[in-house]
Amino acid sequence: MENDVNEREEIGKRAREASRRLACLSTEIKNQALKEIARSLIESKSEILKANRQDYDEARASGMNEAMLDRLLLTEERLKSMADDVNSVAALPDPVGEVFDMRTMPNGLLIGKKRVPIGVIAAIYESRPNVTVDIASLCLKSGNAVILRGGKETLRSNIALARVVAVALQRAGIPDGAVQLIENTDRALVNELLKMRDVIDLVIPRGGAGLIKFVRENASMPVVAGGIGVCHTYVDKCADLDKAVAVVYNAKVQRPTVCNALDTILVHREVAAEYLPRVAKELGKAGVELHCDVTSLAILKKGSGLKLVTAVAEDWGKEFLALIAAVKVVDSLDDALAHIETYGSGHSEAIITEDYTSAMRFLNEVDAAAVYINASTRFTDGSQFGLGAELGISTQKMHARGPMGLKEITSYKWIIFGDGQVRP
Amino acid sequence: MENDVNEREEIGKRAREASRRLACLSTEIKNQALKEIARSLIESKSEILKANRQDYDEARASGMNEAMLDRLLLTEERLKSMADDVNSVAALPDPVGEVFDMRTMPNGLLIGKKRVPIGVIAAIYESRPNVTVDIASLCLKSGNAVILRGGKETLRSNIALARVVAVALQRAGIPDGAVQLIENTDRALVNELLKMRDVIDLVIPRGGAGLIKFVRENASMPVVAGGIGVCHTYVDKCADLDKAVAVVYNAKVQRPTVCNALDTILVHREVAAEYLPRVAKELGKAGVELHCDVTSLAILKKGSGLKLVTAVAEDWGKEFLALIAAVKVVDSLDDALAHIETYGSGHSEAIITEDYTSAMRFLNEVDAAAVYINASTRFTDGSQFGLGAELGISTQKMHARGPMGLKEITSYKWIIFGDGQVRP
Repeated sequence: MENDVNEREEIGKRAREASRRLACLSTEIKNQALKEIARSLIESKSEILKANRQDYDEARASGMNEAMLDRLLLTEERLKSMADDVNSVAALPDPVGEVFDMRTMPNGLLIGKKRVPIGVIAAIYESRPNVTVDIASLCLKSGNAVILRGGKETLRSNIALARVVAVALQRAGIPDGAVQLIENTDRALVNELLKMRDVIDLVIPRGGAGLIKFVRENASMPVVAGGIGVCHTYVDKCADLDKAVAVVYNAKVQRPTVCNALDTILVHREVAAEYLPRVAKELGKAGVELHCDVTSLAILKKGSGLKLVTAVAEDWGKEFLALIAAVKVVDSLDDALAHIETYGSGHSEAIITEDYTSAMRFLNEVDAAAVYINASTRFTDGSQFGLGAELGISTQKMHARGPMGLKEITSYKWIIFGDGQVRP
Repeated sequence: MENDVNEREEIGKRAREASRRLACLSTEIKNQALKEIARSLIESKSEILKANRQDYDEARASGMNEAMLDRLLLTEERLKSMADDVNSVAALPDPVGEVFDMRTMPNGLLIGKKRVPIGVIAAIYESRPNVTVDIASLCLKSGNAVILRGGKETLRSNIALARVVAVALQRAGIPDGAVQLIENTDRALVNELLKMRDVIDLVIPRGGAGLIKFVRENASMPVVAGGIGVCHTYVDKCADLDKAVAVVYNAKVQRPTVCNALDTILVHREVAAEYLPRVAKELGKAGVELHCDVTSLAILKKGSGLKLVTAVAEDWGKEFLALIAAVKVVDSLDDALAHIETYGSGHSEAIITEDYTSAMRFLNEVDAAAVYINASTRFTDGSQFGLGAELGISTQKMHARGPMGLKEITSYKWIIFGDGQVRP
């Protein structure tokens, strides 16, 4: 216990010291380290994939569901994509030091803002091992020290990945406190971390609703959370049904285990009879199970080979993370908006329509991190939005909303250039 | 107790409903209401000043100190200045609806951000009654509903001011849930408010360290806090001593009871013998008491008529809020930076120097909301920085730092215009 306290204090101290050094590092050195990480990910792929395979086998043996297993799995392709993301981060402009909003006041004071790192960030996450590298690279580029605490189900993968990062940092002469992985996966330790307000400036939980709730309720420092996506796509009466089939199919099927995947299809009554059989046929081919309200069930029953289930109350507002979609027929745009307000989680919402006014109403009235007209909600993602990799997707309104890239993990200070001005 | 719960729920419900309406209000209607508030403040001045006089007399009788009494006091001039600030807010551009960072991605998606209100803000504050009007007007302009809870020592003033606001809202057809003053000043009620995460999106505490700590530790929703200013001015060896006298005098004397007033003077050893007697003479005329370290005391002892006290450990890092300043002689810029890092509260820090490199090092290395070269820290203020009135001065790095104006109490949503795009 004594040792644990010392260890935590030591981690905190190292992070604080590193954050001071990181804040002044040149872009060149940070980029060198990032490129080294990307290179090493590929070079060390056999160790990483071996460690991940052990995690995967153990998780499968312990009965983890398919959605979680998919999130956990690393493949050569996914490793390559991780390395690409790190290189993308290296290629992005350095946010630190950016000076903006400068203006000269009537009294001659030149006033503006200068972008600075936040300091020390703690990331507490579950399952996906790529998060380890994404967060480390974004924090490094933005001059923040980071304390990583992944789930126990990916501990071996995370250790292998953190080792790659540590070696790259060392080669670039960056203090090892810059990226620290906590290998102790005891839940109690998370609680201890959440009390370290003096050391940790921001905590980012990524994972299930339980983890996020736990962090929100116990953190003594600011939290930026997100991740839970109950995403609707509303097919309006003026929708181009070809687009509506393609977009809904993509939003549900392209990667069903992530937060921006579609959960509920809302269809306007006037097009339901034509649209639902078409989209259900395509979704059926991919093995999607549909949880239908009474009206949509009546329309789809005629079809064959479809997995149809009568929707229950819990299906509305549920994040399925699987090849399941809820289906509801609505009478109007207003009904769709009301349904989304009640059941949405403020993540990503889409309308499919050719009607200008309906599109603009949806855009203006839906209160979510990302609101789409005629596109798949699967795009809500840092790299798709041009931010490089992402630290997470915030569904809160404070500090940052939606995908969090580099700028979203910085702060600023006001800088004032005077010539002896005093306040009258 | 039952009634209290109902009352709280009612307040929350009204705020939520109003926030939905406020988010869609035209700039014109919001500005009309603001101008009406400004007009009514002047028209109703006798009621307001009478209520304030009762608060003031009661506070004085109960032994409130001069600094607090000054913060509490309204005068005709201060009322005029409050009305001017409201009109300034009306004149500012409406932040809501601003679209920014738009760009077209290679796949043709048009992606960007649209500024939106946060929703419902709770402000918990002490003493200064002008805060009631500042916050109400900033929230109104930015489309946020606000729940105000001032201190009991200004309850009568706040009720009088809130009445002016309520009438103006009514005339403009804005729901009364937009600005609600809680007249129950029981501390327990604050704790209850801090649990209303479903209703309140952001809580802003303004007041002493005790209040801020209480809110930080008990709030279930995000907090943006600040206010505590332990502000240093460092007089470098290359300072223009005329500027250094004028700026330090202004920073300490112009309004000593506020957070951006100077607390500690740091003087480089090479100019201490010349500078300290000059500045002490001026400060002495204003009745400033100096808490001196050994070296500065040895220099100043020769002077006459000065209030000199030997500094104790607690003087460093103390927010005096009175005509008191701590004085310390340092050996170098590095010593000054180290002192500020140890004792500063991250509010406002200044250097007086003609040396370019020292100025830039100070600007880059000091970690505070506002960092000044050759100017008075008293400028750290929303209106002085061109933001109109302010909701407070954040000393944290998340969401907003420094003076918080309109933009700082908004969020954004990502808006995406597509034409059927799907993610490959």
